[in-house]
Amino acid sequence: MTALLIGNNRAAEMTGGPDGTPEERRRAARGAQRLLWWARDGDVLLLPEAPDDAFADHVTGLTGTRRAGLTVVTAALPPTGALPDATVAAVRAALAGRTVDRVMPVYADTGVTGLVRRLGAERALPGWAFHDQGGSALVNSKAAFRAVAAGTGTPVAAGTVAGSPDAAGAAAAELLAAGHSAVLKLAFHSGGLGNEVLTTDPAVRPLGAHRAVVLPGPDAAREHTARHWAGLSSGGRHPVVVERYHPESVPVYAEFEVRDAGVVLSGHGEMLMDPMLDGETVPAALPPDLLDRLVGHGRRLCEAYRALGYRGTLSADAIVTPAGELLFTEANGRLTGSSHLHSVLAARLVGEPLRSRRVFLEKGAWPVPSFGAALDALDRAGLAFDPATRTGVVLVGDRVPVDGTVVPCVIAPDRPAAHAVRRSLPVFAAEPAPAS
Amino acid sequence: MTALLIGNNRAAEMTGGPDGTPEERRRAARGAQRLLWWARDGDVLLLPEAPDDAFADHVTGLTGTRRAGLTVVTAALPPTGALPDATVAAVRAALAGRTVDRVMPVYADTGVTGLVRRLGAERALPGWAFHDQGGSALVNSKAAFRAVAAGTGTPVAAGTVAGSPDAAGAAAAELLAAGHSAVLKLAFHSGGLGNEVLTTDPAVRPLGAHRAVVLPGPDAAREHTARHWAGLSSGGRHPVVVERYHPESVPVYAEFEVRDAGVVLSGHGEMLMDPMLDGETVPAALPPDLLDRLVGHGRRLCEAYRALGYRGTLSADAIVTPAGELLFTEANGRLTGSSHLHSVLAARLVGEPLRSRRVFLEKGAWPVPSFGAALDALDRAGLAFDPATRTGVVLVGDRVPVDGTVVPCVIAPDRPAAHAVRRSLPVFAAEPAPAS
Repeated sequence: MTALLIGNNRAAEMTGGPDGTPEERRRAARGAQRLLWWARDGDVLLLPEAPDDAFADHVTGLTGTRRAGLTVVTAALPPTGALPDATVAAVRAALAGRTVDRVMPVYADTGVTGLVRRLGAERALPGWAFHDQGGSALVNSKAAFRAVAAGTGTPVAAGTVAGSPDAAGAAAAELLAAGHSAVLKLAFHSGGLGNEVLTTDPAVRPLGAHRAVVLPGPDAAREHTARHWAGLSSGGRHPVVVERYHPESVPVYAEFEVRDAGVVLSGHGEMLMDPMLDGETVPAALPPDLLDRLVGHGRRLCEAYRALGYRGTLSADAIVTPAGELLFTEANGRLTGSSHLHSVLAARLVGEPLRSRRVFLEKGAWPVPSFGAALDALDRAGLAFDPATRTGVVLVGDRVPVDGTVVPCVIAPDRPAAHAVRRSLPVFAAEPAPAS
Repeated sequence: MTALLIGNNRAAEMTGGPDGTPEERRRAARGAQRLLWWARDGDVLLLPEAPDDAFADHVTGLTGTRRAGLTVVTAALPPTGALPDATVAAVRAALAGRTVDRVMPVYADTGVTGLVRRLGAERALPGWAFHDQGGSALVNSKAAFRAVAAGTGTPVAAGTVAGSPDAAGAAAAELLAAGHSAVLKLAFHSGGLGNEVLTTDPAVRPLGAHRAVVLPGPDAAREHTARHWAGLSSGGRHPVVVERYHPESVPVYAEFEVRDAGVVLSGHGEMLMDPMLDGETVPAALPPDLLDRLVGHGRRLCEAYRALGYRGTLSADAIVTPAGELLFTEANGRLTGSSHLHSVLAARLVGEPLRSRRVFLEKGAWPVPSFGAALDALDRAGLAFDPATRTGVVLVGDRVPVDGTVVPCVIAPDRPAAHAVRRSLPVFAAEPAPAS
């Protein structure tokens, strides 16, 4: 059993197309190292940046993987287009003649499917044929999502898919005229970066959007949409979603594996706002009827995409409005920022018997002098993950070279305990400034 | 029971976006009059151009519809955007307070769904919510089709969905280098108008494409694709399909109704080439195993789109290659140029008991001095459709004011008989030129 794990964390449909700044690319590269969580003995990882030893040892130590058996190939993984011959050759060399039994990319775009084809590993990537003809775009497009949601009876916010600045402006103006706020969504982006809120109320906070634009009224919404159309439509390439924005809603999701044999729930969670998005907790703490609807509607969405041929991870995202409505907001057909919580931390580190009695809290970044220092501090404080109790802190990501932080995930018996541990993480003294 | 029939024969996704020349619009307007075939007592038709009396009498006489009970509203039906208030008001006035029980557009775009909403008739248009969020684009996109076909195991020609001129050029060049021809397809268009063949062989005929471009070799294919990228991608808005072109293939299709309760076969047919596309015959005369596969794969495609929420007519188009391969080429989620043959001529004029013993041949246009003169000539020759024998010639379209032709459909017991009748249509002497 050899798996090829591909850290293409900046596929075009995850970034809205552009390649981003060097810092954005670097952060994405570090985020892609999260694939280590899925690695098993003998696997090959294709990553934009090799993980540091301390992080790799931490992850493989927890998952029980023999680190020496892993091969990491590093190469730039651009957001679009075929991978260079040299990258294919490097992967082939790392495989050293072994058959690839499983391919797990962050995002199954045609760059990935082309690599897989050249390795002769089509069968190792479920849904390869669908992905190879650009199918992932259908599953990740926020515009297509609204049609599929409407077509499957999935509740969504009032709104429309606009193919022109006039149509988008009219829809936004109508919402503002009715006393609501509006959210404009790029068809392709991730992490809320492609969403912006238009509102007449300066107190409205943009949750799940990169900004709120305060406007005097409906006509200004029309002007704003026309002026920013090129950006909103990715240079005219995609339609734009215009929806009623429900302030102070709680974002939740249910994540699934869409397989040949059916749709399997991976888990669900809730995004945390404090006041801006800075983490998530698993499971989602929803009243049973809302949770049933989140999972039930999410599963039906998966079945629709499955009928097209999609295979892989699929997250159905939703909000719970202050009025208690559950409204779905988008679907993401890729590994998400939550996948590791369900597929690895819950399923493997905690394990099925105890999983339902554990809460996972991944909240904010933890400033540390180094990954090793963070681990030592956890050990000293008695906070490190303990395989005996299946509680404690796991460091799921290493961003030290980028911004001096690691990403901690607390595993605890309940939410209050998880938050208490999170608050108790040691604070490191700032390094004394070097004498000038 | 009141139906609203909407002749929006130039929806953006049927024309590749642009509004077309005045002559193209006029031809589309005459084509839209075909909706008369579906009209029943009391229905309202929204058409770009009112049918002439002779044509309307011919159609309603054959379908047994009381012509005086029909109301025709004429208005421009632009390819995109909401219909003007005046058009909505005119439809409302024509309805005179009656409830719309059924809405049948040529193409269910958001112009149609907006009109339907303003009439409060959402329930009368199956799949309204899906269509209202732009869903028809998913079902008519040739790019999405390739992903869905791949995802559902539907056989297609070798090829790819290209999002950039480089990717498209590389794919076309690869096909030419392998000794094949290539076809480039706009994501949205109809009637083969969005397809062009690239070939190194001057003898290759472009069947189902608007032209063949003869090139010296693979590099020229790259240059051609780059030079024409703006047109191929509709100004960068859509990806382009690049496929191996199989010369001298026979185009066939299976057409279905996608309903809440399931997928129902409407019929199947074969396009006729002589040497260019100039007609079709129903049913498709394929060996039983090929016919089974045409209908079986077509039905599975319909089920995939049905899972998304699509409702309405869906045609699965395919070719049979000279080697006997069945390869699917596109799906069209709209009334097609064949729908009337199955839903009206076969189902109503001939009727179920005899349908399987009749062949329908709609081939070429028939130059006539006037629609009435054409009917008279059919009567005199004893060729007019005879409800007793369920054979004879029906004039399915009236293009006299545009190009002096009508569109005859021969209904006969078998193919040779149908072709014999078609060849025997009277030839009218050209009008003597007026004395100068």
